[in-house]
Amino acid sequence: MPTIHKYEDISQIDREAKRDLIDRHSPFITVKGEAKKGEILEVHVQLGQEYTHPDDFDHYIESITLFDGETKLAMTTFVPGTFGNEKSHAQVTFFIRPMKKKLNLIAHGYCTKHGIWESTPVEVEVAE
Amino acid sequence: MPTIHKYEDISQIDREAKRDLIDRHSPFITVKGEAKKGEILEVHVQLGQEYTHPDDFDHYIESITLFDGETKLAMTTFVPGTFGNEKSHAQVTFFIRPMKKKLNLIAHGYCTKHGIWESTPVEVEVAE
Amino acid sequence: MPTIHKYEDISQIDREAKRDLIDRHSPFITVKGEAKKGEILEVHVQLGQEYTHPDDFDHYIESITLFDGETKLAMTTFVPGTFGNEKSHAQVTFFIRPMKKKLNLIAHGYCTKHGIWESTPVEVEVAE
Amino acid sequence: MPTIHKYEDISQIDREAKRDLIDRHSPFITVKGEAKKGEILEVHVQLGQEYTHPDDFDHYIESITLFDGETKLAMTTFVPGTFGNEKSHAQVTFFIRPMKKKLNLIAHGYCTKHGIWESTPVEVEVAE
Repeated sequence: MPTIHKYEDISQIDREAKRDLIDRHSPFITVKGEAKKGEILEVHVQLGQEYTHPDDFDHYIESITLFDGETKLAMTTFVPGTFGNEKSHAQVTFFIRPMKKKLNLIAHGYCTKHGIWESTPVEVEVAE
Repeated sequence: MPTIHKYEDISQIDREAKRDLIDRHSPFITVKGEAKKGEILEVHVQLGQEYTHPDDFDHYIESITLFDGETKLAMTTFVPGTFGNEKSHAQVTFFIRPMKKKLNLIAHGYCTKHGIWESTPVEVEVAE
Repeated sequence: MPTIHKYEDISQIDREAKRDLIDRHSPFITVKGEAKKGEILEVHVQLGQEYTHPDDFDHYIESITLFDGETKLAMTTFVPGTFGNEKSHAQVTFFIRPMKKKLNLIAHGYCTKHGIWESTPVEVEVAE
Repeated sequence: MPTIHKYEDISQIDREAKRDLIDRHSPFITVKGEAKKGEILEVHVQLGQEYTHPDDFDHYIESITLFDGETKLAMTTFVPGTFGNEKSHAQVTFFIRPMKKKLNLIAHGYCTKHGIWESTPVEVEVAE
């Protein structure tokens, strides 16, 4: 408490409303290209793959935070209206520079009505 | 992952280093006076009661966040040096206005080396 | 642009609506007690002295930031509803530890409709 | 105070150290593609075009904020180490959805040693 809602595979869930709830709040991490030690790496984080989330004044995605394991790497905060007050995939592209052999990327999204949602972790092998 | 470290009663822990680790990172919530519906309520959050935490450039308390249940009420971010680069209890006093019968206050502290730490929840009865 | 609105002495302003606009957005800094080098100092920042500001979903105070000269010391972010969705003085008490002879405290408030507002600076002599 | 440092055209500046100082702190905004009303627009903000900025524990870029005129659209905060503790262009790609005819984009970067730096404004015509 606050609950850290974890992603569940929505293909295993029968009820449409629940699939929508989980998908639209869950952060999905996409790493662009190959990670190389000491080089800038592009990491896109988007909430929802199939379902979009409201961007209403009283119900919106307030932030997306990127962690490597326990360590916060960057955090982006939004306002209601960043996405035009229309249903959207809240998203941001972070840029990081890995200096070690492996990253364990994980993201949190925060919804002003439904709290904190955690992505599945993404292990990234970093080439020397 | 990231781990949400939960407060443990340190009087039950033998090892000094572990007591220190847990206490210095754990947020303690103090509500000042009686909570009354529609009136401003002062809520102090402090990290550590017995042990202080470094405020070093590479190891400091970066933020304190206050929740009511799942809902983020306010968040304060610090820089290394807010507390003079000396061992300190990172702290802040928030002001909120309760409009319902019960609050379930809970706080997170974030340490740049040791991640997220959660207070014990504080139930607050709000007088009409 | 964005404009940094500076505080104007509202006693010199005739129009009530303008006095209200300026006062309710302007941060006022109050230092508690005497500042001593190496000791924790309590710094209260409140928006508005005579006029309160809405805490509506589409119009609220989103943050208060405290600077010492050019240096950000701490920042507190709010959500619509931190102050019960009623007209309020958004406020927070920061704790800092001065390590030099003089502080030049200044605060910014950010309103989601009316942008950034700057307090008058407060010079603080720090006793050895 | 805090000073809002404005971008100056560095090709007009003789002294290398000053060109470096201004360039490495100044946000540069790049809008990808054509802006269309109601469609997601990608906005990249990068600090420095020719000179990179340290990512040291005691000297780093702490945040990049994107405004449309007076209105904050989104803010990204970094930690020392987001960019591997190497000299870098701190950067982020925001996604926004314009709903009006013209945007007046402007960005702030905050350096923990040299304060707030403002980009030149970028006017964006939004196609219906």
